[in-house]
Amino acid sequence: MSDSARKRPPALTNAKGPPAYTVQGHIWIEGTEGTFLGVGRITLLVRIKEFGSITRAAKSLKMSYRKAWELVESMNRQSPTPLVTACAGGKNGGGATLTGAGEKAIETFRKLDSEFKRFREREGRRVGGTGKR
Amino acid sequence: MSDSARKRPPALTNAKGPPAYTVQGHIWIEGTEGTFLGVGRITLLVRIKEFGSITRAAKSLKMSYRKAWELVESMNRQSPTPLVTACAGGKNGGGATLTGAGEKAIETFRKLDSEFKRFREREGRRVGGTGKR
Repeated sequence: MSDSARKRPPALTNAKGPPAYTVQGHIWIEGTEGTFLGVGRITLLVRIKEFGSITRAAKSLKMSYRKAWELVESMNRQSPTPLVTACAGGKNGGGATLTGAGEKAIETFRKLDSEFKRFREREGRRVGGTGKR
Repeated sequence: MSDSARKRPPALTNAKGPPAYTVQGHIWIEGTEGTFLGVGRITLLVRIKEFGSITRAAKSLKMSYRKAWELVESMNRQSPTPLVTACAGGKNGGGATLTGAGEKAIETFRKLDSEFKRFREREGRRVGGTGKR
């Protein structure tokens, strides 16, 4: 922390001493039809990559296959290239693959999320907390 | 925008051209017992200042008096000095006054909200949108 930041009094406290305020929030990326990428969708992409299957990814998140499929379709529709490609049939009901665009989506969201964390910590210190919790 | 920022390709687009992605979110300040200040609570403080009455402030927001009172009490408990002082009785059922700490809470949250807007616009450009919507 710079000296000037250390000397500036926090915004929401007084001489009695600071309560530990934190700045909290949610963030997501919207596309042409509403939510494109959020925490839940990114977790789903990560699991699809891990399991190579929408069915197994959905099951691992206690999510219905229908819901998972809808989320994948929504992401694919809002991206110039699909994030997930799925093929029906086969012994295990077909597989699903995360594409390069899908990998990039995960990376982009994680960067955004980490920038948001830094933003919340910085603003948390400004409003009179420790910035952490 | 700097030249380097202009030349850097956006994260989520490809040669087909960019969909207009935006970064959206919610933000609030937490204190010792959960939410301390959020959009709804700040609106309530602004109306209390405007009307000098929790009853009238609540009514203007189609909120029950009980709910408004609970929000005020929650804010007061989490601040070293109360944000709102209320006096019972009198011809109109008593009045309520926004304190200096209450004014400061509004100002602090508005600054936070405006910083968050800038953050979302900046990150929106980074992920491949116009940053505006």
